[in-house]
Amino acid sequence: MAGLLELLSNNKFVSGQEIASELKISRAAVHKQIELLRKKGYEIQGRRKQGYSLVLRPDLIAPAEVSRRLDKKNLLGREIKYFSELGSTQSRAKEEAENGTPEGLLIIAESQSSGYGRLSRKWASPPLGLWFSLVLRPKLIPSNVPQLTLVFSLAICRALKRFRRINPEIKWPNDIFLGNKKLGGVITEMSAESDGVRWLVLGAGINVNNEIPRSLLDTAVSILAATGGAVDRAALLAGIINDFDAMYRTYTVSGFGGFAAEYNENSLLKGKRVTVDMLGEVISGTVLGIDDSGFLLVKRDNGETRKIIAGDVTLKGW
Amino acid sequence: MAGLLELLSNNKFVSGQEIASELKISRAAVHKQIELLRKKGYEIQGRRKQGYSLVLRPDLIAPAEVSRRLDKKNLLGREIKYFSELGSTQSRAKEEAENGTPEGLLIIAESQSSGYGRLSRKWASPPLGLWFSLVLRPKLIPSNVPQLTLVFSLAICRALKRFRRINPEIKWPNDIFLGNKKLGGVITEMSAESDGVRWLVLGAGINVNNEIPRSLLDTAVSILAATGGAVDRAALLAGIINDFDAMYRTYTVSGFGGFAAEYNENSLLKGKRVTVDMLGEVISGTVLGIDDSGFLLVKRDNGETRKIIAGDVTLKGW
Repeated sequence: MAGLLELLSNNKFVSGQEIASELKISRAAVHKQIELLRKKGYEIQGRRKQGYSLVLRPDLIAPAEVSRRLDKKNLLGREIKYFSELGSTQSRAKEEAENGTPEGLLIIAESQSSGYGRLSRKWASPPLGLWFSLVLRPKLIPSNVPQLTLVFSLAICRALKRFRRINPEIKWPNDIFLGNKKLGGVITEMSAESDGVRWLVLGAGINVNNEIPRSLLDTAVSILAATGGAVDRAALLAGIINDFDAMYRTYTVSGFGGFAAEYNENSLLKGKRVTVDMLGEVISGTVLGIDDSGFLLVKRDNGETRKIIAGDVTLKGW
Repeated sequence: MAGLLELLSNNKFVSGQEIASELKISRAAVHKQIELLRKKGYEIQGRRKQGYSLVLRPDLIAPAEVSRRLDKKNLLGREIKYFSELGSTQSRAKEEAENGTPEGLLIIAESQSSGYGRLSRKWASPPLGLWFSLVLRPKLIPSNVPQLTLVFSLAICRALKRFRRINPEIKWPNDIFLGNKKLGGVITEMSAESDGVRWLVLGAGINVNNEIPRSLLDTAVSILAATGGAVDRAALLAGIINDFDAMYRTYTVSGFGGFAAEYNENSLLKGKRVTVDMLGEVISGTVLGIDDSGFLLVKRDNGETRKIIAGDVTLKGW
């Protein structure tokens, strides 16, 4: 199919005969492949005597487009499972993880019918966004897992900055913001014993070329809306995976400490006044940043500095 | 069936006619019930003209025997699923947890064909031991889960001491020892997000009246072997659940701190020379005890005190 697409890519008409002889297949087979592409959303014009011309490519993530951009030495993304529509990449990845899939499996969906974020909150996942999950099997104790969420968020920030001249920021622990609107988020789920993770599934949702549901327009934004330009999602995804693959290796060997400074540079919260809800206990204060273990440091008005492991952060005045 | 067993319990012969009229069932129904009990392992003698006599009760954990001994206000053990033979109570409990069973489900098996302990190590589970798992849904961050493993181990120790005049000790984090042999162990598995546990399954294996496999005789012991007397396992199990239910409530409200002193009193390791393997890094030193967060404190020979979150501990000279 790749051969046919290449032949059609020169923005002019190519005759069926030409295609058949180029690809060494029958005219009937050419016709079949054209129909298959059309079903996939490719708009192909057919003119008597002139042949075929590709009018519009669908904006789909072709797994092959992701694959060919991944570093060959990567552990992550060696296997890719792709779905035009899925309940949730996260649920699917968890199933695969539980069934023993090796580390590195990447699940991609064009859209999700029941996408979710942290604390099982619903996550709108219409077509043209980037919704994916990764299966990891790190030698890690559960208490260090939140660090990996931070590294993953940082990888997404890095890739976004390199890819587009935008300045995304991370709202600790796991949201990616652009200006004061949500661009994306990360979720981490695990199966573990007290002293070791069995598997981890890292999921990400990024508003790329997708529409933002009307009800979320005040709080969410897409790259398309923010920059006025659509993004090659396969290229962006490959960029994220390449970055994170390298960072994951570093993390595994050297821990989180080396990422803290960069994370703080990308922090939306640093220096801001916040309220943090920690499973019921609520405190207010000013964020000093995160420490070398990834804990959020909040200086309360009484001068006490709290080291926060997990909590819901609200920015004052938002 | 309970009615029939009560009638048979007076250690003398009861005629079929007597049973039938007492239970208001037909003679044929009496015969059927007798056969059913025999299938369950009850040895019932039948004599022409004299009737039936119960010669031997099988040593089985009747769930009703556990239930009736549980505190009415308990959260744990409100539902019990009982199996005469199961792959593993832990695996089964995890499935039930994943499928949404409410907190408190107790799974019991008379024997397990693929019982396992921490780090997926095989755990021999022949008949007459105590093999069970509990489903919990605490509001807890993953990094605090190891504390709950310690509380559970402590509950088992408490119940064992009250039940038999023995002095079990806990080998941090999760083994129960009697003298220098393993009497039991605890395993904790979870499904979690970075900032919250979805479900926890706590499993325990205790060598009670069961035989110890020949290959483990040097390292494992049963209550029967240690005390010379068999134990009513249903009563022991109910005792453990009652203790742990109360301790779980306390833990949920007040955290681990209040359990540290008692844990240290029951600690096999306190004051001992140990080697600890922490996912590869190996250190030696003397155990000072556990701290208020449940971390093991080991004083190395160079004077440094290490706070250990997870690791494999080997006692010097064992």
